[in-house]
Amino acid sequence: MYDTIIIGGGPAASSAAIYAARKQLKALIIAQEFGGQSVVSNDIDNWIGDIRISGFELAQKFEKHVKAQSDLEIKEGTRVTEITQVETEHHFPVYQVTTDAGDSFQTKSLILGMGAHRRKLGVPGEHEFNAKGVAYCATCDAPFFGGMKVAVVGGGNAGLESAWDLLAYADEVYLFNRSGELKGDPGAAKRIQAHEKFKGVLYNTVVTEILGDKMMTGVTYKNTETGEESQMELQGLFIEIGSLPNSDMVKDLVDLNDRGEVVIDHKHSKTSAPGIFAAGDITDEAYKQNNISAGDAVKAALSAYEYVSTLHD
Amino acid sequence: MYDTIIIGGGPAASSAAIYAARKQLKALIIAQEFGGQSVVSNDIDNWIGDIRISGFELAQKFEKHVKAQSDLEIKEGTRVTEITQVETEHHFPVYQVTTDAGDSFQTKSLILGMGAHRRKLGVPGEHEFNAKGVAYCATCDAPFFGGMKVAVVGGGNAGLESAWDLLAYADEVYLFNRSGELKGDPGAAKRIQAHEKFKGVLYNTVVTEILGDKMMTGVTYKNTETGEESQMELQGLFIEIGSLPNSDMVKDLVDLNDRGEVVIDHKHSKTSAPGIFAAGDITDEAYKQNNISAGDAVKAALSAYEYVSTLHD
Repeated sequence: MYDTIIIGGGPAASSAAIYAARKQLKALIIAQEFGGQSVVSNDIDNWIGDIRISGFELAQKFEKHVKAQSDLEIKEGTRVTEITQVETEHHFPVYQVTTDAGDSFQTKSLILGMGAHRRKLGVPGEHEFNAKGVAYCATCDAPFFGGMKVAVVGGGNAGLESAWDLLAYADEVYLFNRSGELKGDPGAAKRIQAHEKFKGVLYNTVVTEILGDKMMTGVTYKNTETGEESQMELQGLFIEIGSLPNSDMVKDLVDLNDRGEVVIDHKHSKTSAPGIFAAGDITDEAYKQNNISAGDAVKAALSAYEYVSTLHD
Repeated sequence: MYDTIIIGGGPAASSAAIYAARKQLKALIIAQEFGGQSVVSNDIDNWIGDIRISGFELAQKFEKHVKAQSDLEIKEGTRVTEITQVETEHHFPVYQVTTDAGDSFQTKSLILGMGAHRRKLGVPGEHEFNAKGVAYCATCDAPFFGGMKVAVVGGGNAGLESAWDLLAYADEVYLFNRSGELKGDPGAAKRIQAHEKFKGVLYNTVVTEILGDKMMTGVTYKNTETGEESQMELQGLFIEIGSLPNSDMVKDLVDLNDRGEVVIDHKHSKTSAPGIFAAGDITDEAYKQNNISAGDAVKAALSAYEYVSTLHD
């Protein structure tokens, strides 16, 4: 029986694991990989203390710090397939975590750090032309679009960052924005709009279909104010419309909000279930930043330590 | 008129300043020095991402990252002497920050990151023998007690860390603990109690007087259960009984709890006053850790950005 099992490998899970080990909890971290969603970023300028670091380097820092905890058990490259509460003779809830390796582990507490994943557009052609023009990660794929005409869907920070990445390679870059104004940083928006290869923001516009033959060749888009539909030839479309929390496995265990995020009290990172704590992008945290994930995960680990200390058989 | 003024130089203020600058707020940080309370620590093993770093190195990382923000204004080596709300013709509260250099600055929002300072014992002799045997920072002063008989007051993590630091230099180390059990990490307690130079924990014991002539020579202490008073010869006493928030200057502006900590909502790091945000050891945050200060300060800066965006003249 573990004191705590930490699930995930991003900033939240890594931080919780480091603190759980320092508190001498009997702890296990189950991580598919280390680094979290920003592992694909080329340049991270806002991990506090490092002026500039790549997502890959940051992932390595997390992994090394986790692996420096000598008493911590680590299952890496393993996916959790099920989390349940099990019947035992104990007077406290016991949770069971099952992995795709067929192992099951029981624990007095859980720290959820499974993060989130990218949201899909959900239009015809999106699946068909995935990796044939349709992409979800400009940091990863922008270099493949050298000299081409491309567009980004989404005017939040992720969309603006993708547009900026693409301006370094593509010949023409457009941005489709659902609402009447960009949601991302004004500074980033200004920088992009001043770039000679940036051809404009289409406001109040949604992409309704992705067209193509073997490869994507264009999109159909609609102005939501006038209802007018148009087509644009495009060789690439980067979809940056937010992310969805990886909370499906715990939806029967803890309260989720209407976005599917795990609801926590932000002072102690407690969920609605006794012994289950959560931090990072899986939660209803307002801003989804690496340092917030780390800080809230420290709270989760210290709360789990306090909780486990109160349990009696 | 600034969009925001950040006060402090520790992990909270540094993080808030970096994010405020990235959001292109017209921002000023007023820092006496960079690094916060842990600047005096030799070894920090729990700043996430760095397996081991000194407090001085961590302070340098904060300072460099803050100074890499080209649009950020910085007043360093300056102490804030007064914070008030001033009458203006604007339809939102305007705050004024005055420094010991005689400057006054007005701002739409404030981010409080002034941290906390060490608590005093408040017994006869404490002031008289300060730096003559009485000390508050083992990391700084332990090397001066080589071969001596010393004691630590306080059984929390700070007390245990001080005892450990002292074991590397002193000949005999005792620990006075107010309650019947140590509050610090069990692992740290075990490690200290196994050390041959560690001579024991005096539980349910308070120091009532510090004795000496030119230098401290001992203490009077009392068992709170039996009422019995005893004396012990000691050449050093390290007082590690927690810290007090540096909130006096804002006590008429924002709600404080009974410990004098600024009460915040932990999801957005908002205080009770519109336009005033806070993070780190000055707040009612439960655990007082560098990474929590950084994460909550990112929330404070992003909340301040949202708040300032909503203001109209």
